[in-house]
Amino acid sequence: MNFEEKQLEEERIFSGVLLDVRKSLVELPNGKQSTREYVVHPGAVAILPVENEYVYLVEQYRFPIGKSLLEIPAGKFDEPGEEPLECGKRELEEEIGKRANTWIYLGYIYTTPGFSNEIIHLYLAKDFESTEMNLDEDEFLEVKKLKIEKFENMIMKNEITDAKTIAAYTRAKLLGGI
Amino acid sequence: MNFEEKQLEEERIFSGVLLDVRKSLVELPNGKQSTREYVVHPGAVAILPVENEYVYLVEQYRFPIGKSLLEIPAGKFDEPGEEPLECGKRELEEEIGKRANTWIYLGYIYTTPGFSNEIIHLYLAKDFESTEMNLDEDEFLEVKKLKIEKFENMIMKNEITDAKTIAAYTRAKLLGGI
Repeated sequence: MNFEEKQLEEERIFSGVLLDVRKSLVELPNGKQSTREYVVHPGAVAILPVENEYVYLVEQYRFPIGKSLLEIPAGKFDEPGEEPLECGKRELEEEIGKRANTWIYLGYIYTTPGFSNEIIHLYLAKDFESTEMNLDEDEFLEVKKLKIEKFENMIMKNEITDAKTIAAYTRAKLLGGI
Repeated sequence: MNFEEKQLEEERIFSGVLLDVRKSLVELPNGKQSTREYVVHPGAVAILPVENEYVYLVEQYRFPIGKSLLEIPAGKFDEPGEEPLECGKRELEEEIGKRANTWIYLGYIYTTPGFSNEIIHLYLAKDFESTEMNLDEDEFLEVKKLKIEKFENMIMKNEITDAKTIAAYTRAKLLGGI
């Protein structure tokens, strides 16, 4: 069925360091009009790094939720249209100080299709060489190495609650990569 | 490790029909200051409805990404502090026209901890009675019934790309509910 909403007008509400907020007037499938408010996001990449029976995660403070989360390494595109694999390689090296020789694409996810266009491309990375961590100036994080079994258990028990981390685990598992 | 960021000031950038956008000045763990822009969200509930060997999904047009997505039924809290189970029951009935007699809590996820506090509580719902669909005025969706095996296959093949849907599948699977 085609429920497409036609954009009639768009207004840029806010353009900050991180957020680009828009408000659109749309025509609904029934001919009525409504507004849609949403965040335009450049897109991102998240990487599940697996070495033998272990995964590497990063723990970092997330200001919007007021606490630290355990997540797979991830980062936004530097510019729209950046190659996802290039972005993934950069972020993996920056956040956990490793270069991977094997990259398996796990597809993508939409994190919040109701209020943002954020898309996150997912990769499984294997076969590492150590390099150096190289964090952004305002980035503070700690690398954690967990047995895959423990990682799975923490997802089950609601101890890992980050959506992209769970999605990457699931795709890697279903595809036979872990 | 404690990487907490202390909020020094907060400004409300935009308060619309859907979005509440804030900008905070924070003190970083190294004593420097930075800004954090984020969306305050009321929280939501998403439900994986399972009947025999089938799941019920809803297909709906998502304006921010410009296409239709196949997702589990979900909805925002009517008011902050609403009981997640109450919200889940309401949304399931509204979106697929069914009342469930068995509800199993699957924990929660953070969809976008980098730029929003959105939390989604997940449930597995079983043992249905039919009632009536009762959509919001601006809501257009189509209910789809899929074999669990097909559902799993679509997640694997990147045909189901909605983060909450994948997370609910994963928790239900790990907990032995499907």
